[in-house]
Amino acid sequence: MQTVIIGSGNVAYHMAKAFNLKNIPLMQVFGRNSEELKKISEELNVPYSTEHLQDADLYIICVSDNSVENVSQIITKKDCLVAHTSGSLPKEILKGEYRKASFYPLQTFSKSKELDYGKIPFFIETENEQDQQFLFEIASKISENVMESSHEKRKYIHLTAVFACNFVNHLFAKAKEISDSQEIPFNYFLPLIDETVKKIHDIEPKAAQTGPAVRNDVKILELHEQLLKDESLKIYKTMNHSIQKMYEL
Amino acid sequence: MQTVIIGSGNVAYHMAKAFNLKNIPLMQVFGRNSEELKKISEELNVPYSTEHLQDADLYIICVSDNSVENVSQIITKKDCLVAHTSGSLPKEILKGEYRKASFYPLQTFSKSKELDYGKIPFFIETENEQDQQFLFEIASKISENVMESSHEKRKYIHLTAVFACNFVNHLFAKAKEISDSQEIPFNYFLPLIDETVKKIHDIEPKAAQTGPAVRNDVKILELHEQLLKDESLKIYKTMNHSIQKMYEL
Repeated sequence: MQTVIIGSGNVAYHMAKAFNLKNIPLMQVFGRNSEELKKISEELNVPYSTEHLQDADLYIICVSDNSVENVSQIITKKDCLVAHTSGSLPKEILKGEYRKASFYPLQTFSKSKELDYGKIPFFIETENEQDQQFLFEIASKISENVMESSHEKRKYIHLTAVFACNFVNHLFAKAKEISDSQEIPFNYFLPLIDETVKKIHDIEPKAAQTGPAVRNDVKILELHEQLLKDESLKIYKTMNHSIQKMYEL
Repeated sequence: MQTVIIGSGNVAYHMAKAFNLKNIPLMQVFGRNSEELKKISEELNVPYSTEHLQDADLYIICVSDNSVENVSQIITKKDCLVAHTSGSLPKEILKGEYRKASFYPLQTFSKSKELDYGKIPFFIETENEQDQQFLFEIASKISENVMESSHEKRKYIHLTAVFACNFVNHLFAKAKEISDSQEIPFNYFLPLIDETVKKIHDIEPKAAQTGPAVRNDVKILELHEQLLKDESLKIYKTMNHSIQKMYEL
């Protein structure tokens, strides 16, 4: 079985690296950004191209959701399987006469950050049993958490991930903006952040809630609002309002 | 030196436990809630009372910010040091003729969750050098991160903590609400959440941002908005707007 990865971003890089680590043959990384492709190619010893897409059995499209449809049209081969890695798109977004699939790794990928691939949940959807078995086999070489998932369910998995990861990271960025403004080193907050996350491995997040909003500490809420403005103030009010609704305060 | 802890909530419990672990003598836990005090007393083998406040050199008030002022008035002794554990209140909120201080542990405390006290940053503010030295000595027995901090700075430390901890936990609670609604096990998201936090030990949060908003993936943003309502939708819009402002999208 010959596989090509299409894309040169964070997901493409980590998928290629995971394949490499598990000795799953990879015949090419293909994309538009020759500089990024070259880096991946050199690190993983895999050929790359920006022009000639290799003939393969499996193409994994790792590009931003905006581009999946366009990119899927460069594959003109019919007897092959094409999978995208998007959490939110249906497999039917792929436009070609090949067999279609979704191969969604639930993780946040940054090139500069090494990952343990073994625990990443993979969600797979295919057109037929054989393709499913094939993608399960590949994903199972990378991770111990491989599952089937419909597009309907995957949309909600992605949405949950946006709250639990993308928005959480943005809160860290806003928090750092506040601490930077007062020359307070952000690493003071790392034990607190680590504990916040450790907690929810043992306790339901709803039961783990602390802070002025859940205590309905009106004076502190007012004081904090005076220290904030613009987007930070909007986040502060929105989050507190939502906390107070959840606990019916 | 004789110390009394006032309060029976999460902070009081963990402060008493930290004192206990480090063999710092604790003569009493005092408060209103006899049931909770009794539990602490039995676990840590420290006397408790709801009526007779012991004569001590140091009182540490571990009650919610709303109650600090009232509670501080039950201490009628003059020749003693009284510290509160609030991140946002000035030491002058304490109403009595004793010496005043702030003794602020930057952490999220839940009774049901064990903690490593050794890394908790403690922020201390006192009226004089001698009290400062005394509180530094105590805090340094508990943690390796003990610092002086003015009230002005401490307010911002607390505010940063609300973003980095309280709001982050609420996002986990909202995320779980979404995944629960589709019968998707929340533990699928734990590797993603763990990685989100691991990342910011190595990368600036601003550089670690991923997700549809920072990619300006308008179609996905619209799709997600259709899946949400009420507070979740408000959070979704507010966070995305703030992300897009931060990256000038």
